[in-house]
Amino acid sequence: MPVYGTPLTLALVAERLREHGLAEAADLRTIRPRERVEAGPFGIEAIRVTHSIVDGIGLAIDTPAGTVVHTGDFKLDPSPLDGELPDYRRFAELGEQGVLVLCSDSTNADRPGHTGSEVEVGQALATRFDGASGRIIVATFASHIHRVQQVLTLASRTGRRVALLGMSMQRNVTIAAELGYLRVPDGVLVPLEELDDLPAHRQVILSTGSQGEPHSALALMAAEEHKYVHVERGDLVIISARVIPGHERTISRVVNALYRLGAEVLYEDNAFVHVSGHASQVNALYRLGAEVLYEDNAFVHVSGHASQEDLKLMFNLTRPRYFIPVHGEYRHLLAHARLAESVGIGPDRVFLIEDGMGVEVSKTTARLVGRFPAGRVLVDGKSVGDIGAVVLRDRQLLAEDGLVAVSLAVDRDGVVVAGPEIASRGFVYVKENEPLLEELKKAVLAALAERDPDAPCDRDLVGATVRSAVRHFINQRFRRKPVVLPIILEV
Amino acid sequence: MPVYGTPLTLALVAERLREHGLAEAADLRTIRPRERVEAGPFGIEAIRVTHSIVDGIGLAIDTPAGTVVHTGDFKLDPSPLDGELPDYRRFAELGEQGVLVLCSDSTNADRPGHTGSEVEVGQALATRFDGASGRIIVATFASHIHRVQQVLTLASRTGRRVALLGMSMQRNVTIAAELGYLRVPDGVLVPLEELDDLPAHRQVILSTGSQGEPHSALALMAAEEHKYVHVERGDLVIISARVIPGHERTISRVVNALYRLGAEVLYEDNAFVHVSGHASQVNALYRLGAEVLYEDNAFVHVSGHASQEDLKLMFNLTRPRYFIPVHGEYRHLLAHARLAESVGIGPDRVFLIEDGMGVEVSKTTARLVGRFPAGRVLVDGKSVGDIGAVVLRDRQLLAEDGLVAVSLAVDRDGVVVAGPEIASRGFVYVKENEPLLEELKKAVLAALAERDPDAPCDRDLVGATVRSAVRHFINQRFRRKPVVLPIILEV
Repeated sequence: MPVYGTPLTLALVAERLREHGLAEAADLRTIRPRERVEAGPFGIEAIRVTHSIVDGIGLAIDTPAGTVVHTGDFKLDPSPLDGELPDYRRFAELGEQGVLVLCSDSTNADRPGHTGSEVEVGQALATRFDGASGRIIVATFASHIHRVQQVLTLASRTGRRVALLGMSMQRNVTIAAELGYLRVPDGVLVPLEELDDLPAHRQVILSTGSQGEPHSALALMAAEEHKYVHVERGDLVIISARVIPGHERTISRVVNALYRLGAEVLYEDNAFVHVSGHASQVNALYRLGAEVLYEDNAFVHVSGHASQEDLKLMFNLTRPRYFIPVHGEYRHLLAHARLAESVGIGPDRVFLIEDGMGVEVSKTTARLVGRFPAGRVLVDGKSVGDIGAVVLRDRQLLAEDGLVAVSLAVDRDGVVVAGPEIASRGFVYVKENEPLLEELKKAVLAALAERDPDAPCDRDLVGATVRSAVRHFINQRFRRKPVVLPIILEV
Repeated sequence: MPVYGTPLTLALVAERLREHGLAEAADLRTIRPRERVEAGPFGIEAIRVTHSIVDGIGLAIDTPAGTVVHTGDFKLDPSPLDGELPDYRRFAELGEQGVLVLCSDSTNADRPGHTGSEVEVGQALATRFDGASGRIIVATFASHIHRVQQVLTLASRTGRRVALLGMSMQRNVTIAAELGYLRVPDGVLVPLEELDDLPAHRQVILSTGSQGEPHSALALMAAEEHKYVHVERGDLVIISARVIPGHERTISRVVNALYRLGAEVLYEDNAFVHVSGHASQVNALYRLGAEVLYEDNAFVHVSGHASQEDLKLMFNLTRPRYFIPVHGEYRHLLAHARLAESVGIGPDRVFLIEDGMGVEVSKTTARLVGRFPAGRVLVDGKSVGDIGAVVLRDRQLLAEDGLVAVSLAVDRDGVVVAGPEIASRGFVYVKENEPLLEELKKAVLAALAERDPDAPCDRDLVGATVRSAVRHFINQRFRRKPVVLPIILEV
């Protein structure tokens, strides 16, 4: 099956395939904005959008019933670094010709206003670079080529050199530079060893780990476990990314650790509001309890997703008959649906659906058509998709209270001829609890001795007696409920 | 050992002790603001502060070296609901007499401005109550008696009735009302069954679960698993609490689920800035990209912790010789230390310490004196503190890859006379993998057959052979590393 993508996307994919020895396995085909691919009854056209990765596209899909526009992840950056503007004109043309369905990015549908331009980040970073007297460490997503570009440009302009940290950062920079998406100023990139020879105020480290991911370059530095880089007083660490929901704890841990090492740290929580106004305005905002970002402390990241005013513009350009909000949690999809209503796309024309739900659209009508299989496929080791609910629940139980396994051998008459032996993990520290385990063995034997001698000596039945005796004993002594695993052998 | 507290605090503690059959075990003694307890060389005085629980106090501890002021969790609410103002005057008097050390709450040390008054929440909630045409569900902390008070008062004023959901909510309301901390308007509290008989616009449910805690009343409602309450279109859910860091995911899940059921939801993310200004000002803020809270959408929670301007006031009232920021992550402690510097308390007078670090203070000097044992004591079932690093690490390993236990019986010559039998949890779904487990048994037997027949037949050695055979087999077939537990019996 062919896989289409823009040149940078495909280059990144190809590299990952190579790493996994799958370079030959995929049929990668390049598509560029305004180009069109025919696929059966569909004609698919790429449309330039801006996003936190360069070379992003949305899609216009011609179908026999009409045109479906899918924005992909997008924002409307009026001044992107590479001059590759979102293709407002093409979206408008499509709107003119008639769009049947619009699927549009909902990530920031609950944010009022416009999403800032990447250029603003450059200005904020410039202030920081100008003000920094020591080493600067910038953490961002390795895929955010424009952010990387800004750091390289600024470093070059301020007489600094840059070393790259983190595998994906090195890989992406190499690929993006080769393909011309990144202009690396002469001599600005140096290996870490060379950077180390420079005075601190000429050093920049560009690193992965903006979400505080364990084992990422930034997390290792924060934990003083990085082989080569030791964060110290005077360093300025800029986490140039938003906190992705769910990563609050890990980022918090990294930020605290960096502070502890004496570094100055800039990250999302330092500021909310971006104003460029006068001091009086800033003070007024502070007085109202707002966190304020102004000249001196302007924030070092803007989102890659369109805010409400941008999303409204997309509605107005494409003027769709039907609208399906995509990309976001339910609350974001709902906010986007409400936004649609605010520009006149009534609830009967909006399909607020989630993964697995189907919508059937004809030239004149649209309706929900039930559920389709969709969701996560878990990969564990070599197996794909065979880790089911039972296995996951068991792992959870094991994590909560550990496990006690009891093994014994019985003869045909049900007489215990060996054991019981007990092994446990995650339950108690065995070395300190030998006497208790001896007692447990006795409790098991006592329970078996009480069995009706005429009862069938079935391994399952013996196992059940053992399990219940072990559970009872442990509950009495510890008030805990480890997983109990009896293994009965027959001699 | 006597335990001192204000009347409400002790009543809540006593109730919990009763629940655990420990009512007789504790020597609880009441202390009130401006009262003093003598304890050895120390004299300890309670000082009224405001916080998100009523009846809060800070402490002034007279020591032979001088006075230590500990604020406890506090904010400076100039208009608390119960009229119990923070005791500005006493803090000032102490400052006048000379404070040796101030330990002050750092939770909001990175927030500019003043923390809002609880009264503002009442205004915001009033707008919501006035505007709601259906049932209202308010989730907050059961300990936040003033928030509960506001809901009861508002309900009564707007002709609504309130039912309480959640054990701790019912318990705390009962205790606070008995002690006179809560004034329950006549007839406003009704059992859930009675509430159900009223039209939706006369119903309020006051619930626990503001952090989306699993099994909390709100989480059960969101999951449609609550026995009696079914959230539906037209309901307004107000989460009147902040998102405590680390709870973002659970709250997000609850909010999404409530939206899915058709409810309107108000929670922290809906708004950041609280302004009471004109529309033009609001629009200006929106244009700047700020989230704005004004008349119609004012937020439904204020913090219980002092912000920067309040903290500065505390410095200026108490004028301490030394300062130790307490209560907060390192970044908050650091922000508080910097704030101290901004009011003239230099770094040599600030001890930025974390749990377990000691500071020795005399009349004229202060210095760090190393580390003391401090930290978490884990309680698991009946045991206190005996769950160590080994047990926890084992639980983690079990959670990641599950466990495979292999048992067999050998005779004195090392000949396998029974087994191997295999039992596993959290590894593969056994029923679908019988053939593989048979292969695994064969691999174990093969490994044992290869053992040097003259090698000693020690159970540990046999176990090691089994473990290594199982690991090898599983790694080959699955590329996974479950915990392998061999249990060798001797017949």
